[in-house]
Amino acid sequence: MKLLEDRIRRDGVVKEGNVLKVDRFLNHQMDIELFQEIGKEFKRRFANENVNKILTIEASGIGIACIAAESFHVPVVFAKKTQTKNIAGEVYTTQVESFTHGRIYDIIVSKEFLGKGDRVLLIDDFLANGKALEGLAQLVQDSGAELVGAGVVIEKGFQRGGDAIRAKGIHLESLAIVESMNDKTGEIVFREQ
Amino acid sequence: MKLLEDRIRRDGVVKEGNVLKVDRFLNHQMDIELFQEIGKEFKRRFANENVNKILTIEASGIGIACIAAESFHVPVVFAKKTQTKNIAGEVYTTQVESFTHGRIYDIIVSKEFLGKGDRVLLIDDFLANGKALEGLAQLVQDSGAELVGAGVVIEKGFQRGGDAIRAKGIHLESLAIVESMNDKTGEIVFREQ
Repeated sequence: MKLLEDRIRRDGVVKEGNVLKVDRFLNHQMDIELFQEIGKEFKRRFANENVNKILTIEASGIGIACIAAESFHVPVVFAKKTQTKNIAGEVYTTQVESFTHGRIYDIIVSKEFLGKGDRVLLIDDFLANGKALEGLAQLVQDSGAELVGAGVVIEKGFQRGGDAIRAKGIHLESLAIVESMNDKTGEIVFREQ
Repeated sequence: MKLLEDRIRRDGVVKEGNVLKVDRFLNHQMDIELFQEIGKEFKRRFANENVNKILTIEASGIGIACIAAESFHVPVVFAKKTQTKNIAGEVYTTQVESFTHGRIYDIIVSKEFLGKGDRVLLIDDFLANGKALEGLAQLVQDSGAELVGAGVVIEKGFQRGGDAIRAKGIHLESLAIVESMNDKTGEIVFREQ
């Protein structure tokens, strides 16, 4: 998605350790007009999937998911991160290892909001090691709902997450795939799509 | 806002200890079409304030804030909750006491995204003891930006938060104010507005 790649080049900041900061428009300050274009693009790519629910994960996936949901005319459910006890029986839960924060946490979704008959699209802002998406996919599977695919704004193509998701047979659409970055020059190379 | 009060009566669940669960449409599963009506109502109530930025707090405020931002045509910034070290100098930060979780955490906003010349509207889903809103107001004040008001979806009118915010001279608009609830009968009484 050219508009997005241009924006990442303009406002993204490459930091040491393969860190790409996009908090000017994506995950701290949020450019809602850009989100609308992103939402339309997700709708275009999953147009024939009869999505009836979008599932995301707090916190930075929520904004993208809500704006995308306007194009799909479906509700959004966000999985909650928790380090506290789970309410046994009332939620689907799985463990996710955070790349950014180097810790393991539980994610939960109430059983009331996910189940048989649902056709679920996962949405998230970032895909790096893929653990968050894998966790969401697990919750969908546990619920008996159908996973129709996953839409991600930025994929770090040089990490293993995207390939791992695709290897599971999940229909993954990443609107921008970063192939390499250079924190000395600030250069960002995107994968041709 | 009648549409909202009707929805709270229909889908809200009153639990012991003055807990109002609205996770069917507001803060776990999110009804985006309702959010659009809520966003338009916030715009109507703050129409003349020349808002140029919406500030909210993760996680459940983000969805409402993003959809409302479409009516205002402004970006959203969300304050992050953190229990880790702050990056001194680069962020505004203050402490917030959580009513729901009974603990104190720091909230932070990057200095890059809030400052002199900004006219900031706070948006959040819930107002109970008001500590989150007070924290956000503090960040706005620290940044030199102007706080034009606060829009809240549901205020618990029987707790002190709303009055505390109003006593600070902040223009607060709550779309539904719960005056009392009965967890035996499920009855919810709203304040006449």
